[in-house]
Amino acid sequence: MRYLQGSSIAYRTVRDLRTSRVFTRFSSTHAEGAQAAVIFSGIQPTGVPHLGNYLGAIQNWVRLQHTSGPDDTLLYSIVGWHALTLPQNSRELFQAKFDTAASLLALGIDPERSILFQQSDVLNHLELSWYLTCLTPMGKLKRMTTWKGKLATVRNANSEDEVDDSMLNLGLFSYPVLQAADILAYLATHVPVGEDQMQHLELSRDLASIYNRRYSIAEYTKPFFPLPQAIYTPCPRILSLRDPTQKMSKSAPDPNSRIMLTDDAESIAKKIRSAVTDSTKGITYDPVNRPGVANLLTILDAFRPSENEFDSPSEALTALASQYANKGTGDLKKDVAEAIVEGWRRPRAEFERLRADRGYLAQILLEGSHRAESLSKLTMDRVRQHIGLSDPDIENPGDTRL
Amino acid sequence: MRYLQGSSIAYRTVRDLRTSRVFTRFSSTHAEGAQAAVIFSGIQPTGVPHLGNYLGAIQNWVRLQHTSGPDDTLLYSIVGWHALTLPQNSRELFQAKFDTAASLLALGIDPERSILFQQSDVLNHLELSWYLTCLTPMGKLKRMTTWKGKLATVRNANSEDEVDDSMLNLGLFSYPVLQAADILAYLATHVPVGEDQMQHLELSRDLASIYNRRYSIAEYTKPFFPLPQAIYTPCPRILSLRDPTQKMSKSAPDPNSRIMLTDDAESIAKKIRSAVTDSTKGITYDPVNRPGVANLLTILDAFRPSENEFDSPSEALTALASQYANKGTGDLKKDVAEAIVEGWRRPRAEFERLRADRGYLAQILLEGSHRAESLSKLTMDRVRQHIGLSDPDIENPGDTRL
Repeated sequence: MRYLQGSSIAYRTVRDLRTSRVFTRFSSTHAEGAQAAVIFSGIQPTGVPHLGNYLGAIQNWVRLQHTSGPDDTLLYSIVGWHALTLPQNSRELFQAKFDTAASLLALGIDPERSILFQQSDVLNHLELSWYLTCLTPMGKLKRMTTWKGKLATVRNANSEDEVDDSMLNLGLFSYPVLQAADILAYLATHVPVGEDQMQHLELSRDLASIYNRRYSIAEYTKPFFPLPQAIYTPCPRILSLRDPTQKMSKSAPDPNSRIMLTDDAESIAKKIRSAVTDSTKGITYDPVNRPGVANLLTILDAFRPSENEFDSPSEALTALASQYANKGTGDLKKDVAEAIVEGWRRPRAEFERLRADRGYLAQILLEGSHRAESLSKLTMDRVRQHIGLSDPDIENPGDTRL
Repeated sequence: MRYLQGSSIAYRTVRDLRTSRVFTRFSSTHAEGAQAAVIFSGIQPTGVPHLGNYLGAIQNWVRLQHTSGPDDTLLYSIVGWHALTLPQNSRELFQAKFDTAASLLALGIDPERSILFQQSDVLNHLELSWYLTCLTPMGKLKRMTTWKGKLATVRNANSEDEVDDSMLNLGLFSYPVLQAADILAYLATHVPVGEDQMQHLELSRDLASIYNRRYSIAEYTKPFFPLPQAIYTPCPRILSLRDPTQKMSKSAPDPNSRIMLTDDAESIAKKIRSAVTDSTKGITYDPVNRPGVANLLTILDAFRPSENEFDSPSEALTALASQYANKGTGDLKKDVAEAIVEGWRRPRAEFERLRADRGYLAQILLEGSHRAESLSKLTMDRVRQHIGLSDPDIENPGDTRL
């Protein structure tokens, strides 16, 4: 019941997708002969994560290690090439790679179970990206909207209306093609995505289809690239502690708006104590009118062991709020701070330990990259045959490359 | 006097740049301490070349082997990745790679002197291309015009006005960035280009400058990437034998419009005999009014040993025409056919011999790719430091990659 297996994956869908962990379990039929799933996801090297990064994505990656089947492959990539679509400080980027790796390991990514690797170690991604680039209609990319948001952020624009494509560099325009290559290089079948990435996954599916039609090989009984499916796991959306109408963000100017994995117990308590809520009395779960309180409930809920099941995330949070019926915001804040401190006690210590051991981190990343390289090479050997860069007529293309 | 040396290269420029070989020699000052030149050029894997390919580009590559200095590096690349910007038949593309390599060797490229390699063996090109992609303003690419011509050709449009960018794929739009990477990966200082490629070289220079400004490293006393200079060698523009208002082209429907390296003496004679000229009596060099005759004179001149020097290509051709003062088109055609048959006798035989020896060709290309890989790796090791994908603070980055 808890196994993610092949294309028989099903997941519960509810309207309120955004706020609870209860939907990270997959119900799947263990179909006889079903092919194992290949799950790919990427994270930018942004360094030390905050609570929003953890609860929004990393926690889900960790859970997939348990909910996936034993034959499924999990690939988690630190995607440095995507980071370059916006200006980066080189020294910070180099440090951030290690901090990101240390965070992922500290928060529970098991490098034996998951292939944890740096995208920029595996040139196959860029090679496949070029082949897909030659199949990508410009019009499809123009319809992508994510670059507008990114450009607005980097330009400090107040809204996406203030930016246009004259300010755009080719990298920010074309990175969804590289994303497709990241996924397809492993013949990935499943991609955990957030809502904002759905259009990119759609592009990956489109490009896989275009490729399959263009290079359909008679011998294949099925299309070469599987069309990757979304694992749309609703993750709690953690809001800024200073402005609960905004997402918690690393780039917000006020450091008190976010809780970092490196924060000690005292600063966590202080940040939560000063979290903006509202003047309504009592604790209720009302994300529209009381986003600050709802955010605190969401955080608390995310760190609780999940014993009960609810039909929807909002039911779970409403039930949690009812436990505070006779209490005030101060009581809630105290519990939230404690939950974070406790929940992150071991990961925080582990992060500091790992961060100091760059040699170990480099070794883990290197091993991951070797595994990713071997897997993607199997794909690329075939792709080069399809395209005519290596001999289309030999059975085992092997390594005809350098 | 005949050496191409560092940045002290000079070359004679005259108005009539297009028609003579006498300008392929460089006059250079052998400046003390001047850095050796690195010359890069690419050719698409189009297979067996015709006369226009040979006289328009390949002959020039061969000559650069003699006119360049002993410390200069020559890199000639079969650029399969660029071929993919237009649809290709995979089997034909695979064969064409070997035919192109065999042709280049048969026509005089010396794999000891020049690094002859397949672009698609050296992933560094694509890696550098991504970094440049992230620095390329979309506006600069929109101003490139070459994609219009290519698109018009592949769509069988009558003119460039019939195509627009809604038909465009991302590869055809962005390949000038990959071209820049091809060049800059070797810190190339010089690029032999035709007139239609000048805007692409300009883009390479722009991207080199943008990179140098973005990642200027204090320790460097000079910019990291040299701004590659054009070696604008005027090459004869060979016209169709059936329609001397058009360039000789592989894609023209009438095979009698072109002479291929594989043509035997009989078919060469036949094609030249039936070449379209005009009804004016006698032989004169008048490229505007008598393009067919001028084309024959150009071909004849290109195959003659160059003993005399003239101030301009048109002077040389006028002098050649005067040798036919008392003769007719038939005499000229006979001499032209003989010149081609004789000039290509050895290369044609050599081509057939090499074409049959795919193992040897593969070996030559592999050796070239290893040399190209080693050279470009030196560049990429530094580039990764600049960007922050490898440690900016170590002296010798070495291979931190897989």
